[in-house]
Amino acid sequence: MANNFSEMIDRRHTNSVKWDVKDNELPMWVADMDFRTAPGIIKAFQDKAASGIFGYEEVPEAYFEAVQHWYATEHNWAPNTAWMRFVTGVVPTISSAVRRVSNVGDNVLVQAPVYNIFYNSIVNNGRHVLSSDLVDHDGQYAIDWDDLDAKLADPLTTMMILCNPHNPVGKVWTADELAQIGALAAKHHVTVLSDEIHGDITDAGHPYTPFASVNDVNAQNSITCVSTSKTFNVAALHAATVIVPNEALRNVVDRGINTDELAEPNSFAIPGVIAAYTTGSDWVHAMNAQVTANKQTLTQFIAAQLPELQVIEGHATYLVWIDCRHVTSDTTALADFIRAKTGLFITAGAVYGGDGHDFIRINVACPAERLQDGLNRLADGVHQFEKQA
Amino acid sequence: MANNFSEMIDRRHTNSVKWDVKDNELPMWVADMDFRTAPGIIKAFQDKAASGIFGYEEVPEAYFEAVQHWYATEHNWAPNTAWMRFVTGVVPTISSAVRRVSNVGDNVLVQAPVYNIFYNSIVNNGRHVLSSDLVDHDGQYAIDWDDLDAKLADPLTTMMILCNPHNPVGKVWTADELAQIGALAAKHHVTVLSDEIHGDITDAGHPYTPFASVNDVNAQNSITCVSTSKTFNVAALHAATVIVPNEALRNVVDRGINTDELAEPNSFAIPGVIAAYTTGSDWVHAMNAQVTANKQTLTQFIAAQLPELQVIEGHATYLVWIDCRHVTSDTTALADFIRAKTGLFITAGAVYGGDGHDFIRINVACPAERLQDGLNRLADGVHQFEKQA
Ligand SMILES: Cc1ncc(COP(=O)(O)O)c(C=O)c1O
Ligand SMILES: Cc1ncc(COP(=O)(O)O)c(C=O)c1O
Repeated sequence: MANNFSEMIDRRHTNSVKWDVKDNELPMWVADMDFRTAPGIIKAFQDKAASGIFGYEEVPEAYFEAVQHWYATEHNWAPNTAWMRFVTGVVPTISSAVRRVSNVGDNVLVQAPVYNIFYNSIVNNGRHVLSSDLVDHDGQYAIDWDDLDAKLADPLTTMMILCNPHNPVGKVWTADELAQIGALAAKHHVTVLSDEIHGDITDAGHPYTPFASVNDVNAQNSITCVSTSKTFNVAALHAATVIVPNEALRNVVDRGINTDELAEPNSFAIPGVIAAYTTGSDWVHAMNAQVTANKQTLTQFIAAQLPELQVIEGHATYLVWIDCRHVTSDTTALADFIRAKTGLFITAGAVYGGDGHDFIRINVACPAERLQDGLNRLADGVHQFEKQA
Repeated sequence: MANNFSEMIDRRHTNSVKWDVKDNELPMWVADMDFRTAPGIIKAFQDKAASGIFGYEEVPEAYFEAVQHWYATEHNWAPNTAWMRFVTGVVPTISSAVRRVSNVGDNVLVQAPVYNIFYNSIVNNGRHVLSSDLVDHDGQYAIDWDDLDAKLADPLTTMMILCNPHNPVGKVWTADELAQIGALAAKHHVTVLSDEIHGDITDAGHPYTPFASVNDVNAQNSITCVSTSKTFNVAALHAATVIVPNEALRNVVDRGINTDELAEPNSFAIPGVIAAYTTGSDWVHAMNAQVTANKQTLTQFIAAQLPELQVIEGHATYLVWIDCRHVTSDTTALADFIRAKTGLFITAGAVYGGDGHDFIRINVACPAERLQDGLNRLADGVHQFEKQA
C-alpha cells in the first residue's frame, strides 16, 4: 500500500470529534490529521481483530524495545527500557503526575501560550497555574529567563509542564535551552514533566531534542511522555509511554498510574505501537514532508492574500500559529465570524493563555486540495470581517 | 461462523495475563474466558481496522440505544439513554465515583467475601472498608439484615458497593433483596453503586435483576455499572457504561469521569459494544449453556472425587466458589500447593475477605476438555495435600 496524503477521505458522520460539523463546514481545529494511518498499523490491527481474543493483556518487553528502537533511530536517544511504563494516554498521565508530584495548593509552571488541556490537569486537581509567558519578539517566541528563574524559585512551585516541541507556537527547543530549563528546575527543586507528543512531527533539518537526553541533570529530574498518537494519527488508540530515568521518581509515577488505572493496555494498543515504531519510519517522514509543504503553501498564501496576518515560523507540529493583531485582538470573535460566514472551523488562541487572544491556530494536516479550500475560506472570512469592523 | 466453545485455543505466549504461566501450568483463575468472542464483534473490529482512521471519537446515540436495547430484551429493563455515559471500564468508574460521592475518611460498605478490587478503589482513595459480611448458612450465602442496617446507619458510611450478581459467591440477588438493600440505603442516605458486570452470565431460569429496575427509590439513589467485558470476553476492549437515573447524582458522576479521563472511547470501543449488544444475544445464550454445563460437570466431579469439598450453589458468573474448610482454613497454602504439585492455578479465597480463607475460586469458562484436565489436577492436588498434612 503506497502512502497517500492526497486522498480526500470523507470523515463526516463517522463519530469523529473533528468532523462533527455542519455539512458546509470545514474543520481545521483539533490535533487530528485527515490522513489514514500507516499501513503497518492497519495490518497489526487486522491481525489482532482476526485473533478473536481480547482478554486482559500484559505489556511485553517487545513493546519497550520498540519505543527504544524508535528513539534511538529517529532521535539519537536510546532510553533504558527499565525507565518506561505503558500508559493509556499523555493527558491522563500528566493529571496523575500532578497529583503525585505536587500538593494541593502548589503552583505548576507552564509557558503560555500552551496546549490548553495542561490547565485542566492543574486546576482540576486543586493546583494553581503559574505561567512564565513566552515572549514574542517579532514572530519568534523566546523564554524570559529571569522571569522563569523567579517563578521556579517560588517555594510553592513544585512542578513544571514543558511542551517539547511547543504546541501551539510550533517551536523546537534547542539542547541549550533545554539544558538551561533543566538547570533552573533542578536548582529550585522543581520536577519537570516534558510532554513530547509532537516530537516526531518536525520539518527536515529541525529535529527535536528529548529533554532527558540532554544531560544527567535533566534525566534525573524529569518525567517524559511520548506517544504514537499524534505522529501516526491514532489519537483513539489510547497508548502512550512515560519514561522516568530516576528510580525514586519512577516509583512515584508508577504508583499514580496504577492507582489511576492508566497502566493496562487495550487489545489494540500493544500491536499498534509495536507496528508503528518498528515499521512506520518511512510513513512518518513522508507525512512530515507533506506537512512541511502544507505549511509553506499556507505561509505563501497568507503573504500574498492576507499580508495583515503574520505566520509564526515554527518547525514542529502540523498546527500553525498566526498573529492576527493587526485585524483584531479578539480572535474568538474572528474565529466565530469566519465559521459563521465561511464554514471554516479553526481554533481561537485565547484558550492557550498568554497573548493567545491575538492569534488563531490552524491544523494543516490534510490533503493539499482541502488545505486550499481552507485558505480560500480564511481569506474570504478575514476580508469580510475587516469590512464589517 | 458457528459458535465454538470446545476449540482448545492456545493462548500461551500471547501477552495474556491469564496465560502468563509455566508450560506445564493450567490457569483457571482471573475472570477471562478461554473462548473466542462473538463473531459480530470480530467483524466490527475488522471493519474498523480496515478503515485506517483512528482519530478522536464521540459516542453516538446508537451506542446508548444499543445498551438500552440489550437491557430491554435481555433483562426486561429499558433505561433511558439520557441516564447513560460511556466509560473506559468498571473499576476506574468505581474509583472515580468513590472520590466524588464519599469523602476521605468515610466508610464505603461492601459485602465480603467480594471482588477484591473493590478494596483497592476504597483504600487507595483514603476511604475505609466497612464490610457487612455475607453469612454462609450451609452453602447458601445470605445478608445479615440487622448488621447491614446498623452499618449503613453509621454516619461515616456514605456509599455502598453492591456486586449484583455477586462475585465470587455466584449469587443472583432477588428483586426483594434488592428492594430491601435499596430501602435501607435510602433511609440512611447511603449512595449505592451497583456493579452489574456479571449480570448477563446466569444459568437459564435464574435471570439477574438490575438494581435500579426494582423501584424508584433504588433508581434515584444508585449508580449502575454495566459492561460487555465479562459477557463477551472482551476485558481489554476498555468499554463500559454507567447508568445514573438521578440527574444531580449523574452530574456528580459525570464530572468525575471527565476529570479522570474515563469518558473518551478508544477506536474499537464503540463499534465493538454496538455489535455485541445488537448481534450477540445467541452467542451469550450458547456461552451461558456451556458455562452451566461446566458448573454441573465440576459439581458432579467434586461430589464423586472430592466429597470433603463443598461447591456453593451459584447461578451467576463462570466462577465457582468452593468451601474447603474440611481440608484447611488456609486455602492460600492449599492453592500454592496445588499449583506447585499439579500446575493448576486457581484463586485462594482470602483476597475476597470475610470467610474467604476457607474457599477457593475456580474459573470454569473453558472447553470441557480443558475443564476435565483442571478437575483431575484439582483432585490430585487436594489428595496430595491431605496426605502431607
Ligand atoms: C501537547 C499535547 N499533549 C497531549 C495531547 C493529547 O494526548 P493524549 O490524547 O495522549 O491524552 C495533545 C493533543 O493535541 C497535545 O497537543
Ligand atoms: C465484579 C467485577 N467488577 C469489575 C471487574 C472488572 O471490570 P473492568 O475490567 O471493566 O474494570 C471484574 C472483573 O473480574 C469483576 O469481577
